[in-house]
Amino acid sequence: MAEAPKDIEALIEIMARLPGLGPRSARRAVLHLIKKRGPLMRPLAEAMTRVAEAARECLNCGNIGTAELCPICTDARRANGQICVVEDVADLWAMERGGAFAGRYHVLGGTLSALDDVGPEDLRIPRLMDRVTSEHATEVILALNATVDGQTTAHYIADALAGTGVSVTSLAQGVPIGGELDYLDDGTISAALKARKSI
Amino acid sequence: MAEAPKDIEALIEIMARLPGLGPRSARRAVLHLIKKRGPLMRPLAEAMTRVAEAARECLNCGNIGTAELCPICTDARRANGQICVVEDVADLWAMERGGAFAGRYHVLGGTLSALDDVGPEDLRIPRLMDRVTSEHATEVILALNATVDGQTTAHYIADALAGTGVSVTSLAQGVPIGGELDYLDDGTISAALKARKSI
Repeated sequence: MAEAPKDIEALIEIMARLPGLGPRSARRAVLHLIKKRGPLMRPLAEAMTRVAEAARECLNCGNIGTAELCPICTDARRANGQICVVEDVADLWAMERGGAFAGRYHVLGGTLSALDDVGPEDLRIPRLMDRVTSEHATEVILALNATVDGQTTAHYIADALAGTGVSVTSLAQGVPIGGELDYLDDGTISAALKARKSI
Repeated sequence: MAEAPKDIEALIEIMARLPGLGPRSARRAVLHLIKKRGPLMRPLAEAMTRVAEAARECLNCGNIGTAELCPICTDARRANGQICVVEDVADLWAMERGGAFAGRYHVLGGTLSALDDVGPEDLRIPRLMDRVTSEHATEVILALNATVDGQTTAHYIADALAGTGVSVTSLAQGVPIGGELDYLDDGTISAALKARKSI
């Protein structure tokens, strides 16, 4: 016989498909949930049902929200002509946590990748081109990951925007705040040295 | 503003209370769920609701199932006079995965602990005493963790059962299958040496 009843095994199997959980930790999480049925499992199931019903992608920028347009796209104060291009909603949230950016975002939903057969049509790049015109953007900030695919995508977008007169920038590369040189890779140190500034 | 809408933030907060997930990995898991609303999030919410409704502890042994008595306690073939005492349902499932035990279980629901103020009444120890008599047990196997609290509990139960005539055993201690001596702690090596057997 299986160790756990069918319904519980099914739940463990689905939980194990979450990023960061494997079969063993999913089992542990489910047991914990069952022990705390009242205070934890029911509220979690309800919150999940609610979000599954309500969550949707912003038609304009791809951010995740509960309305057709996300709060950032409907906030007129954020229409300052800057559009920050990120790979993923998680990156958008990370930027918002920083609180240093006052413009709007554009979530690509991935990066160009020849290996995985992801082309510009599969991302939201055509939509970005439209927005640059329709929102009278003055600057497009490419906040893409410093990976090969991220940088390839950044170059592609910069090329595509070349004729539009919008200024295209990217995040600075260098030593992270609180970072120790001894633990940094050579590439970062070289980049930080090349981009050194007078103090 | 918060990065994510209220409902999503609430879901992230609840997810972060699962063992093995923190605020960051909960955020990642929730984003993944939202991206896979159809194939993953809805089935998960439904499975969770179903288990929250159905799951209950077996009145006899404390195993988790969906009926008043678990399949092991209702299976007459498993009434062989052996009762295996475990701390937790996870341990019961681990024993069942091994498939080497044909008797019934008794889940204590924890260990005795002076520090956390857990006494015999807080565990299922009185119920174990009843079962030893009512189920005509011949052997009680103490499969408790090899921790201080686990071993204290084992000794307490062995003492409590001393007058009943039932034979009390515990799992063997020694080198795990596939284990390398070099990576084992001194205690395990000493225990394995003391319990050596002729081949």
